Amino acid sequence: MGDISQLTLTECMGMIRPVRDALDVLSGKWKLPIMVSLMFGNKRFGEMAREIPKITDRMLSKELRDLEVNGLVSRTVKDSIPVVVEYSITDYGHTLEKVIHELHDWGTKHRERFATADKV
Amino acid sequence: MGDISQLTLTECMGMIRPVRDALDVLSGKWKLPIMVSLMFGNKRFGEMAREIPKITDRMLSKELRDLEVNGLVSRTVKDSIPVVVEYSITDYGHTLEKVIHELHDWGTKHRERFATADKV
Repeated sequence: MGDISQLTLTECMGMIRPVRDALDVLSGKWKLPIMVSLMFGNKRFGEMAREIPKITDRMLSKELRDLEVNGLVSRTVKDSIPVVVEYSITDYGHTLEKVIHELHDWGTKHRERFATADKV
Repeated sequence: MGDISQLTLTECMGMIRPVRDALDVLSGKWKLPIMVSLMFGNKRFGEMAREIPKITDRMLSKELRDLEVNGLVSRTVKDSIPVVVEYSITDYGHTLEKVIHELHDWGTKHRERFATADKV
């Protein structure tokens, strides 16, 4: 964002849109668990369905399609017998890791802060 | 998050919780605009109500209270005539700027990527 003090308030309000775009990509109940599952290697649909607690096949299918449309996950059909469909994180998907990292660090501190506050 | 490959999947799924906490703090329609408005300096309620497009007094009041509870914004009553109530970002609130920065950078690239894809 550069030096915020050099910008007008209107310019800055315009900067909220890309932040919201990024939040939208990560929000919802399942996108993060799916991305994390795929960070551990390429997976077939059934493997993910077993790994991610409580996700239904229908939701997994829907969310994978969303992630594919956003270019974060790719779907490869392997010409084997039986045919195997494998999902993986794209290079572009890997660029999200830094953002997730920052959110994780901040969220961990936030959690610690309130865990301490509750005990006082 | 360190080196993700050193962790088990279960450990990694546990790391989703702080990420979600951070997302929750930033999500919703008004928290970001309010934080951005206060990044430009301390403000009174009425100033923010005018600056933030379309926010209602009721929503502004609710969201400021949430941000206060989360320790991100502080409310100071100045003993003047008339009494002035001023809002500001706390030191803790400023720690969110790095996260917002990362989200902004990623969201900008994401937007550019899809703007280009649409034109092809």
